[in-house]
Amino acid sequence: MTISNSSPLGVAVIGYAFMGKAHSNAWRNVGSFFDVPAFEQKVLVGRDAGAVAEAAAKYGWAESATDWRAVLERDDIHIVDICAPGWMHAEIATAALAAGKHVLVEKPLANTIAEAEAMTAAAISARTQGVQSMIGFNYRRVPALALARELIAEGRLGTVRHIRAAYLQDWLSDAKSPMTWRLRKETAGSGALGDIASHAIDQILYLLDDPVTEVSGRLQTFVDQRPGADGLEDVTVDDAAWVNLTLASGAIASVEASRVATGQKNSLRLEIYGSLGSLTFDLENLNELKFMDTTVPVREQGFRRILVSEPEHPYLEAWWPQGHIIGWEHTFTHQIRDFLTAIATGVAPSPSFEDGLNIQQILAAVEESAAAKSSLIQLSARATSTATEGA
Amino acid sequence: MTISNSSPLGVAVIGYAFMGKAHSNAWRNVGSFFDVPAFEQKVLVGRDAGAVAEAAAKYGWAESATDWRAVLERDDIHIVDICAPGWMHAEIATAALAAGKHVLVEKPLANTIAEAEAMTAAAISARTQGVQSMIGFNYRRVPALALARELIAEGRLGTVRHIRAAYLQDWLSDAKSPMTWRLRKETAGSGALGDIASHAIDQILYLLDDPVTEVSGRLQTFVDQRPGADGLEDVTVDDAAWVNLTLASGAIASVEASRVATGQKNSLRLEIYGSLGSLTFDLENLNELKFMDTTVPVREQGFRRILVSEPEHPYLEAWWPQGHIIGWEHTFTHQIRDFLTAIATGVAPSPSFEDGLNIQQILAAVEESAAAKSSLIQLSARATSTATEGA
Amino acid sequence: MTISNSSPLGVAVIGYAFMGKAHSNAWRNVGSFFDVPAFEQKVLVGRDAGAVAEAAAKYGWAESATDWRAVLERDDIHIVDICAPGWMHAEIATAALAAGKHVLVEKPLANTIAEAEAMTAAAISARTQGVQSMIGFNYRRVPALALARELIAEGRLGTVRHIRAAYLQDWLSDAKSPMTWRLRKETAGSGALGDIASHAIDQILYLLDDPVTEVSGRLQTFVDQRPGADGLEDVTVDDAAWVNLTLASGAIASVEASRVATGQKNSLRLEIYGSLGSLTFDLENLNELKFMDTTVPVREQGFRRILVSEPEHPYLEAWWPQGHIIGWEHTFTHQIRDFLTAIATGVAPSPSFEDGLNIQQILAAVEESAAAKSSLIQLSARATSTATEGA
Amino acid sequence: MTISNSSPLGVAVIGYAFMGKAHSNAWRNVGSFFDVPAFEQKVLVGRDAGAVAEAAAKYGWAESATDWRAVLERDDIHIVDICAPGWMHAEIATAALAAGKHVLVEKPLANTIAEAEAMTAAAISARTQGVQSMIGFNYRRVPALALARELIAEGRLGTVRHIRAAYLQDWLSDAKSPMTWRLRKETAGSGALGDIASHAIDQILYLLDDPVTEVSGRLQTFVDQRPGADGLEDVTVDDAAWVNLTLASGAIASVEASRVATGQKNSLRLEIYGSLGSLTFDLENLNELKFMDTTVPVREQGFRRILVSEPEHPYLEAWWPQGHIIGWEHTFTHQIRDFLTAIATGVAPSPSFEDGLNIQQILAAVEESAAAKSSLIQLSARATSTATEGA
Repeated sequence: MTISNSSPLGVAVIGYAFMGKAHSNAWRNVGSFFDVPAFEQKVLVGRDAGAVAEAAAKYGWAESATDWRAVLERDDIHIVDICAPGWMHAEIATAALAAGKHVLVEKPLANTIAEAEAMTAAAISARTQGVQSMIGFNYRRVPALALARELIAEGRLGTVRHIRAAYLQDWLSDAKSPMTWRLRKETAGSGALGDIASHAIDQILYLLDDPVTEVSGRLQTFVDQRPGADGLEDVTVDDAAWVNLTLASGAIASVEASRVATGQKNSLRLEIYGSLGSLTFDLENLNELKFMDTTVPVREQGFRRILVSEPEHPYLEAWWPQGHIIGWEHTFTHQIRDFLTAIATGVAPSPSFEDGLNIQQILAAVEESAAAKSSLIQLSARATSTATEGA
Repeated sequence: MTISNSSPLGVAVIGYAFMGKAHSNAWRNVGSFFDVPAFEQKVLVGRDAGAVAEAAAKYGWAESATDWRAVLERDDIHIVDICAPGWMHAEIATAALAAGKHVLVEKPLANTIAEAEAMTAAAISARTQGVQSMIGFNYRRVPALALARELIAEGRLGTVRHIRAAYLQDWLSDAKSPMTWRLRKETAGSGALGDIASHAIDQILYLLDDPVTEVSGRLQTFVDQRPGADGLEDVTVDDAAWVNLTLASGAIASVEASRVATGQKNSLRLEIYGSLGSLTFDLENLNELKFMDTTVPVREQGFRRILVSEPEHPYLEAWWPQGHIIGWEHTFTHQIRDFLTAIATGVAPSPSFEDGLNIQQILAAVEESAAAKSSLIQLSARATSTATEGA
Repeated sequence: MTISNSSPLGVAVIGYAFMGKAHSNAWRNVGSFFDVPAFEQKVLVGRDAGAVAEAAAKYGWAESATDWRAVLERDDIHIVDICAPGWMHAEIATAALAAGKHVLVEKPLANTIAEAEAMTAAAISARTQGVQSMIGFNYRRVPALALARELIAEGRLGTVRHIRAAYLQDWLSDAKSPMTWRLRKETAGSGALGDIASHAIDQILYLLDDPVTEVSGRLQTFVDQRPGADGLEDVTVDDAAWVNLTLASGAIASVEASRVATGQKNSLRLEIYGSLGSLTFDLENLNELKFMDTTVPVREQGFRRILVSEPEHPYLEAWWPQGHIIGWEHTFTHQIRDFLTAIATGVAPSPSFEDGLNIQQILAAVEESAAAKSSLIQLSARATSTATEGA
Repeated sequence: MTISNSSPLGVAVIGYAFMGKAHSNAWRNVGSFFDVPAFEQKVLVGRDAGAVAEAAAKYGWAESATDWRAVLERDDIHIVDICAPGWMHAEIATAALAAGKHVLVEKPLANTIAEAEAMTAAAISARTQGVQSMIGFNYRRVPALALARELIAEGRLGTVRHIRAAYLQDWLSDAKSPMTWRLRKETAGSGALGDIASHAIDQILYLLDDPVTEVSGRLQTFVDQRPGADGLEDVTVDDAAWVNLTLASGAIASVEASRVATGQKNSLRLEIYGSLGSLTFDLENLNELKFMDTTVPVREQGFRRILVSEPEHPYLEAWWPQGHIIGWEHTFTHQIRDFLTAIATGVAPSPSFEDGLNIQQILAAVEESAAAKSSLIQLSARATSTATEGA
C-alpha cells in the first residue's frame, strides 16, 4: 500500500483508564512494527488534571488536557480516539466528526439506540467529506481470527451451518465482590450482554459476513444485591446472557456470556461448523486457531492446532520469529494500524459505526426477547440491511 | 453391600444391533470385575433367526430366540434388557413387568409421552411387588461424572449458577450421507434432540438433583433432503437442537446438540459453574474431570485435570492400576453392576422410568417451544414433581 | 485372511495376577469383536489352588490348575500364555515349546540374557515345526501407534531424525511406599528400566524398523531405602533411567523412564521428528495421535489431533462408532487377535522372542554404560542383526 | 522499593537486529507499566549508518551512532545494553565496564571460555565500584517461571528428584534452508547447544538454585551440508543436543535441544518432579503453569492449569486484568525493569556474568563429553562454586 508522506497526524486520546491505557500502548508501539502514516501522540484527555498528566507522561503523550472540547478545536489534532465511558460517546464523537476529526470510538457505540443512530448518521455524513470513523471491536484484529475469516471466505468450511460462541469470565463469581457503576443499568446499559456478548456477536458478523435476521435471548442476574458504600445495593444488570441468532444464510449461532463462570478468566470461544470443515478458538490462547479440514483422508483428519505466528499469517510479518507469541494488547496495535491505513488510503475502515449500531440493535432485541419469554424477535429490515452495508 | 447367594438370575437381552452388542459386552464382563449376584447369559432375542444366533454365539449368550413373548413366559428368565427400537419399548416393557421380570430399557423410554406414561405406571406398580426397572442413561456411570456428582453433592462448587452442556457429533455432516430410519420422525421420534440432547439433559438432572421447571428451545434441519433408495427423500427430524432450561434452584442450563458439528466425533461436554468452584468434562476424554476449586489461594488456582483412574474414584477399584484408562463400553458394565446390585438389595435403581418420562416431557416441551418461536414453556407441576421423585 | 475351520484351540494361561487378569480379559472378549480361529478358555494356572479357582471362575476359564507341567502334557491345550513372574519364563516357555504348544510370553522375555538366549533358540527351532511364539509388548497394538507405524512406513515423516520417548509414572513417589519384590534386583532384574523403559524402546524399534547400534545410559535410585516387614530395606533397582540410542539409519532416540514422576500416572510419550512431518502420542490419551504434516501450506500447518476411532483406523472396524473410545485393556485383545491369526495363517507373529532378546541386550547395554560413566556402548553385531531379523 | 529520584539514566543499545529490536521494545515500554528509575533512550548503535538511523527512529531512540567506542566515552550514557553478536561481547563489555557503565549483555556471555572469564573478572571488579552487570537470560522473567521458582523455594514440590527440560524448534527442518553464520562454528560457537539448550540449562539453575556438578552430552548434525552462495557448504555446528546433568543436591536433569523438531516452533518445556509435587511449562503457552500438588486428597489431585495473569502473580500487577495474556516480548520488559531496579537499589542483578560463565562451562563440558563418547564429566570445583555464588 502507498501511504502519503504528508505532515504527521496529531492524535488525541480521551480517557486514561483501562481502555485509555490499552489504546495508548497501541499508539506508542504501532510505528515500531508497522509502516503507518506519520503521527504524533499529542494529547491525553481526562477529567482529573493531576492523574491525566501522570498517565500522559507514563504512556508517551506529549501533553495532557482536561477539556475535550478545547482539544477538538485544535488544528494540530486530526484523530480523536474515544476511550471515555459509553454514555459520553455520542456527544464527543458527533462533535469530533463535525470538527472534521477522524474518530475511533471504543465499543459499545453508545448506551442507547437513539444515540447510536445519531452517531451513525454523523459518521455517514462525515465520510462523504473524507473523515473516517471506526468502532473498536478489537478482537477483529486477533491474527488467529483474521486467519479464520480468510479460511471461511475462501470456502474452506463449505456451508457454515452453526456457530457456538461464548464469552466466559469470572470476576463477579464472588457474591461479596462490591457494587460498581458497571452493575447499574443507568450507567452501564447492560451487564455481560453489552460488555462481552457484544464481542462474541461482533465476531460472528465479522467471521461470516452474514447479517442477523432473528434473535432470541435470556438474561439472568444470579447475585442480585452486592455490598455498596451504605450496605447492600441492587444489581440491575445481567450476570449472564444466552442468545440465539438466525443469520441471513440460514446458519444459526448460539452465544453465551457470563461474568460468573468460575475459573474462566477471559475465555472468548468460537466454534464454527461447516459442511467441509470447522474452526475453534479460545482467547485465553489467542495465538492458536484449530482447523478441521475434511478434504484430507479420513484416516488423518483431526483438528490442527495452528500456532498463528508465521510471516504468512495476518499481521505477523511485523512481529517476532515463529513461535514467539504475542499478547492480548496487540489487538489494539493492529486496530490502530488498520485505522491509520484507512485514513491514509481513504478506504473506510471496518467495523464502522453502522456495524456498531447493528450490534446495539441486536442487543436491544435480546433484551426485548428476554422480556418476552425468550421469543424469537425479527430484526427490522433496516437493522439487517445496515448490517449488510457495514460488513 | 450384602448380596444374597441364591440361584443365578437368568438374563434375556432383546435386540442385537449397536446397543445389543454394547449391553452384551457389559453382561459378559461385569462379573469379572465386580461382585454381583450370580446370573446367566441365557438368551439373545432378535427378529432374524440366523443373524441373532450368530450374534448370540459371538456375544456369549447360551441361546438365541426370535419370539420375545415366548421368552417372557420362561421361568428361568428373571431379567429382561430391552435394546430393541424405541417404538417397541412400551409393549415389551409392560409385558415383561407384568410377567414379573426386572426390566432395563434403553433410552429413550418410548417414542410418545403416552407410551412413556403407561410404562411408568407399570413400573411403579411392579416396584411394589419387588420388580425393579431402570432406564439406560449409561453416562450416569462414567466414573468422572459420578465423581462430579459427588463433588457437587458435597458442596464443593457452592451454589451452582449455570451449566453449559453440549453433545456434538458429525456423522451427518456430509449432505450426501444417505437417508435412514433415524432421519424420519415416524420411526425415530426426533433427531439430535432425542438421540443426544437427551443424554445431556439427563446429566444435568443427575449431577445437580435439581428438577427442570421451564424450557425453551429451537430445532433445525440443515440438510432437509438426503438420497434414499428412490431418489431424494425428506429428512423430518432435526440435525441440531438448542435448549435453555430453568432448574428449580434458579440455576440455568444451556444445551446444544448437533449431528453436523464437523470434526466433533462424540463430544458430550459439560461445564458446571458454581459460586465456589467449577467442573468441566468431555466424553472424548472420558477418564478426565477438570475441577476448579476457588478455596485454594488465588496464586495457585486453576482447573485440575483429574485422571479418574484411582481406587478412590467411583467404580475404579475394580479395574486396572492408576493411569490405565478404560473405554466408553464400561459405562454399560457399570450400569449392569448397579442394576444387578439394586435387584439384590431391593433398593430401586436409578434412573427410574419416572426419570425417563421426565426427560421425555422436557423434550416434548422443547418441541412445543420450538414450534412457538422459542418461547419459554412452564413444565407442568406433574412433570417436575415426578422429576423430584425420580431424582 | 483365510482362517482354517478346524477344532477349537485349547488355551491355558499361567498366572492370574495383574497380567493374568489382563490377558484373561482379552481371551474372554476377542471373539466377540474379531474373526479369529475357534478357541476355548480351558485352564487358568496358579500356585494357590483356592485363589486360582476363584480367578478362573471370575475370568471365564473352564477350569483351574496348580501344576503347569501337567497342563503342558494335555493334548487339548494348544496355546500357553505365560503371565508368571519373569524368573519363571524361561523354564515354562522352553518346556511349552518343546511340547509343541504355541507360546505367548509377557515381557520381559527373561530376567537374564542367558535365559533369553535359550528361549530364543527354542523359539527359532520350534518355529520350523510350525509352533509359534510371541512376546507381549502390548503397546504395539495401540491403534494410534499402529497408525503411527503406517504413516512412518509410508514416508509421511520423510527421514526420521530424532525420537523423544518417555515413560513416566509416579507410584513410587512417596518415599514411605513399602518395599516389594519389584524393588529388589534379584527378583525384578531392574526397576524403571526393565519395567517401563523397555516398552518405550520396543516402540522405537516397532515404529521405525531401525535397529539400535549404540547405547548410553544412566540409572538412579532416589529413594534408596524403603520400609519392609522388619524395618528399612535397601532398594536395589533404579527409580529412573535415561537412555540415548543410535539407530542404524543415523537417527537418535532419547528415552527417559521414571516411577517417581509425581502426577504422571501412566504416561508413555512418543515424539518422532522427521524431515517432512512429526508424530506425538501419550498413553494417557491412547485414542489420540497427533500428526504434523509439512506438505500442507505453512499458513495452515499444525499438529492434528487424530481421534483414532474410525473404521479406517487399525483394529477399529471391530469396535464402536467413531468417537466412542476404547480402553487400555484392548491392547491385549488386539494382541490375542494377532497371535491367533498368526497361528491360523502360519505367518510368524511379531514381536518375536528375537525381538525380546534384542530389547534385553539393549537394556543390558544401558546398565553397562551406566556403570561406565554413561559412555556410549556399541551393540554387538549379533544383537543388531537379530534385531533386523526380528523386525 | 524506594528508587532514588536522580537525573535520568542515559541508555545506549548496541545492535539493532532481532535482539536489538526486542530490547528496544522493552526500553520503550517498561516505564509505561512499572515504576522504574528515570531513564532516556539515548542512542542506538550499529554498523550501517542508514539502517541504524532508521531503526533508531522506529524503535524510539533519540539518536543513532556507528562507533560504539565513542558512545562509551559519553558522560550522558550510564547504561550499555549489548545486543551485538557474541564474538563482540567481550570487547564491548569490558570497555563499557571500565568506563563505569552498567552493562546488560545478551546471552551467550561470549563465544569462548577465556573471553567469558575475562568479562566475569571485569564485572566482579566493577561491581565493587557500584557498576552493575547482568546477562540476558530473559526467560527468568517469564511470570509463570518466576511463580514456579517461588513454589519450589517454598518447598511445595518437596525434594526435587528429576527435571526434564527440552527446547524444540524447527526452523532448520528443511534441508534446503540456506547456510548462514549461525551454522558455522567459528561465528556461532555452537548450534542448538549454545543457542537454546543454554536457556534450558539456565532455567534449571534458576528454578532450583542447585549447581551442576557433573555433565554428559551428545551433539548431532543431521543436515551436514546446506546451500551457500557458491554451492553446498559444510554445517559445522550441531542441529540437536542431548545433555544429562547431576546437580549438587543429587537431582538429575535431562535437557534436549533441537532446531529440527518439525512442528515445534518455540517450545521450551520444563517438567520438575519432586517428592510432594510437580510443575510443567511450555513457552508456546507462556502464560500457563501446571502444578500438581499431592497434599490435596488423591481423589481430587491433578495438574492445575494456572493462568498466570492475576495481580498475585509475579510482574502481573502492572499489566491487564486477569486472563488478558501477555506476549513473549515482555520477558525483556521485565528484564529491563529488574535491571533498572538493581541499579537504583545497588543490589547486584541476577543472572550475573558469573552465572553466564557457569553456563559456558557447562556447555563446554557437554562438548567435551560428546567428543568422549558421552562420558560423564566432572565440573571443576571452580565452575560449581562460581555457580553457587552467582545463584
